[in-house]
Amino acid sequence: MTNPTAAMLVIGDEILSGRTRDSNLHFLAQALTRKGINLAEARVVADDPAAITAAVRALSEAHDHVFTSGGIGPTHDDITAECIAKAFGVAISVRDDARAILQAHYDRSGQELNQARLRMARIPDGAALIDNPVSAAPGFSLGNVHVMAGVPAVFEAMVASVLATLTGGAPLVSQSWRVMRGEGEVATALTAFAEAHPDLSIGSYPFYKDGVYGTNLVLRGPDPAAVDAAMVRLAALFPQK
Amino acid sequence: MTNPTAAMLVIGDEILSGRTRDSNLHFLAQALTRKGINLAEARVVADDPAAITAAVRALSEAHDHVFTSGGIGPTHDDITAECIAKAFGVAISVRDDARAILQAHYDRSGQELNQARLRMARIPDGAALIDNPVSAAPGFSLGNVHVMAGVPAVFEAMVASVLATLTGGAPLVSQSWRVMRGEGEVATALTAFAEAHPDLSIGSYPFYKDGVYGTNLVLRGPDPAAVDAAMVRLAALFPQK
Repeated sequence: MTNPTAAMLVIGDEILSGRTRDSNLHFLAQALTRKGINLAEARVVADDPAAITAAVRALSEAHDHVFTSGGIGPTHDDITAECIAKAFGVAISVRDDARAILQAHYDRSGQELNQARLRMARIPDGAALIDNPVSAAPGFSLGNVHVMAGVPAVFEAMVASVLATLTGGAPLVSQSWRVMRGEGEVATALTAFAEAHPDLSIGSYPFYKDGVYGTNLVLRGPDPAAVDAAMVRLAALFPQK
Repeated sequence: MTNPTAAMLVIGDEILSGRTRDSNLHFLAQALTRKGINLAEARVVADDPAAITAAVRALSEAHDHVFTSGGIGPTHDDITAECIAKAFGVAISVRDDARAILQAHYDRSGQELNQARLRMARIPDGAALIDNPVSAAPGFSLGNVHVMAGVPAVFEAMVASVLATLTGGAPLVSQSWRVMRGEGEVATALTAFAEAHPDLSIGSYPFYKDGVYGTNLVLRGPDPAAVDAAMVRLAALFPQK
């Protein structure tokens, strides 16, 4: 049994210009790992219709799920919904259920649901709305693409809404072992260890701290007992001093 | 005159599993913006030869420069150099200049240049070395692809080495204007403003802080005088209260 695969598409000039540091990829990566969905790749594209549409198509064909962040607000640079509709060849228009959600939200806060805000009720035909408990304006799922806001608090709430509806696989469990030797000193033995454990993903991450070189070794796999057993052997191979 | 374009390729299971939060994309984005090189897209792929090779080929064809991070250390999961060689159809082997750099480094520190560490001297044919003032093991440039380490301190030093050799364009300058109104209230006027300033990139970034909605408006363009002049008009359009 293989876990489902996923891709993330981060949309926004502000990430690529360095104005904003993305945090949604890291959040999603951790959430998917816990859910047993394998995040296989991620892309960041600009607010450019051709780039967004091409990336959505490519990722949607290659993976079980695609998660996007960014570009679904009320301003001129929020073009994600239109691009998703185009990628799937469906129409897009203001939808009554999305409009009702926004109307109720702005009525409560004494604000006007003006033309700009109404843009956020534009939903591609056939999409299912994603609940936004933070600021009301919904995301949506169309086919295997889940379209969410870029603002981290909203993105994170929408991820929770979407993941509750998806079936994951066996969550990957991981264990780390910290060795106070440089990567170059553990590499040969680690290669043999990796070859002896083909069912595990084995990572090696060097660090340099307070004048000392060290390496974090990480074992990852779907079977907790197998990871535990391998960790005992790894610890024996690289005893902590 | 159009600025050169670039792409970034982040390589590593640890980013996609959520174990590690990438910081190299944000660093590179800021450095390229200062240099007048337009970072047009970024991708994150796993330690998977087919994925790395395909991404390198696609990005190398589409952009003037490609910057990669990760996968050039001494362990079994460090496969980037082999994949780059394969993507370009060239051979790879231990090269004398790279070996000499490593030999001198390990001689100085009283460590052995063992087989594992010697992997870091494997350089594709025709590549130029990238200096690594932090931990010696070099990166390399092959064609328009610049291959660098994933450890942030090393990556950042290598970026400085590479960018010194590249010709950029006019650095994009940007100015921000903070409006204490929600995005939905500024959107209509902002759209008209954007249409009146087709030479500028105009971004709108909502925030919510201490119970108040606000929007950061960002003007970006290659001509500082044009950005200054537009900022005066923007400030008049959305006076700060």
